[in-house]
Amino acid sequence: MRNVRIRVAYDGSGFFGWQRQDGFDSVQQAIEEALAVLVGERVVVHGAGRTDTGVHAAGQVAHFHVDTRLDDATLLRALNANLPRTVVVDALETCRDDFHARFDARSKRYAYVIATTRFPPPGCRTRCHWTPHVLDVAPMRRAALQLLGRHDFRAFSATGSPRKTTVRHVKSLHFLVRRRTLCFVVEADGFLYNMVRTIAGTLIDVGRGKLDPDAVSRAIGSGDRDEAGPTAPPGGLYLRSVQYDEPVFRDAPRRS
Amino acid sequence: MRNVRIRVAYDGSGFFGWQRQDGFDSVQQAIEEALAVLVGERVVVHGAGRTDTGVHAAGQVAHFHVDTRLDDATLLRALNANLPRTVVVDALETCRDDFHARFDARSKRYAYVIATTRFPPPGCRTRCHWTPHVLDVAPMRRAALQLLGRHDFRAFSATGSPRKTTVRHVKSLHFLVRRRTLCFVVEADGFLYNMVRTIAGTLIDVGRGKLDPDAVSRAIGSGDRDEAGPTAPPGGLYLRSVQYDEPVFRDAPRRS
Repeated sequence: MRNVRIRVAYDGSGFFGWQRQDGFDSVQQAIEEALAVLVGERVVVHGAGRTDTGVHAAGQVAHFHVDTRLDDATLLRALNANLPRTVVVDALETCRDDFHARFDARSKRYAYVIATTRFPPPGCRTRCHWTPHVLDVAPMRRAALQLLGRHDFRAFSATGSPRKTTVRHVKSLHFLVRRRTLCFVVEADGFLYNMVRTIAGTLIDVGRGKLDPDAVSRAIGSGDRDEAGPTAPPGGLYLRSVQYDEPVFRDAPRRS
Repeated sequence: MRNVRIRVAYDGSGFFGWQRQDGFDSVQQAIEEALAVLVGERVVVHGAGRTDTGVHAAGQVAHFHVDTRLDDATLLRALNANLPRTVVVDALETCRDDFHARFDARSKRYAYVIATTRFPPPGCRTRCHWTPHVLDVAPMRRAALQLLGRHDFRAFSATGSPRKTTVRHVKSLHFLVRRRTLCFVVEADGFLYNMVRTIAGTLIDVGRGKLDPDAVSRAIGSGDRDEAGPTAPPGGLYLRSVQYDEPVFRDAPRRS
């Protein structure tokens, strides 16, 4: 038995999220089934983040214990050969036996992609969130500053989601503006259920002038879900990377 | 009757190209059917470029004569409401009666998008061309320089495609490198059948070291299709814009 960790990218639009659920296609199940074909027995895959239905990943991390004589490079190729085309494992390495993709994660980065074209962009319907509104980035940046730091983010979570604590530490949030696409990347030590999508919906409302930037501070202060904006749809959301205290995946993504 | 021109974006992966063909879904047909619903009679739409099966467009231009009392803004909204989600008209304006989208075009710009990730990117299979090879951009730039100017591009066209002349003027070709995506944009007064895809296949072979950059000059000089590289697949190709001598579409694409 050895412990193996993988970095996974997927198009979430064809899946009912990461987590295995009977009767619904999930990314976890797709990887577990590909592994079962290779090693001839059930393998349980543990992901760092449980992405929702329709949410994508560029750098999800997962680990599993497996009994195989295949070396890492061969296992990587064989695994990809058995996966659907919308799931790709782009790095794989044997790791210390007690590495846990979720419990050991120091922070996660999510990206949220918003198309601000006049009409919805063709072919990207499930891969970004289109808004018909003109967005002013300056107040969005002012609102984003208020999210930084350790706060109780109860107001930015789906109501009723059970959690011991709703305090999270948002380490950074920055915007990338490129032509008619607006994207923000947010890093935190953890995220509440629907937290990034609620941040997205709030920032969009600020950008279109429906909410003032200080609504963010007020929502954090009151913990009232109604003070934050709506929950933006899942297609714009990407789990971009997971950070660990130890160096992971010595094969950095190839750059041209 | 008035003459109307439109700027169209589409995801070509679900279409058998731009041009209407009996029994096959085409973009032209999709637009003509949407118009027929609106005005109650057959309308013929003339596109600037006849993109192939699987080729996309960001800024195709087309025109049609139509008899309707709807003003431009209303016609634009109504047309989009009747189009499939993979075709979007993002600008529409009534124009001089003898404007012709194809005959009046001064030049066209195509983009070709190449993913150079280690494994094929999920969810982008039909929207870029993935190559497993590491590409060195420096020799690709040297090869591209040899394409610039007025040349006989016979070697860069599908053999047997009937044309009066195979001389074309390539006005510019530049590269955009962004992480693991390599894109080039080429502008010419016109393109032969499969010309951009053959340029793409040639540049990729140069980038991976299979062809030397001077192969481009040799292919232009000899006119021998075998001296150029292979025809790259259609999914990476986008008709990006069409240039005219007169100003078209005063509503510039919205930028955030």
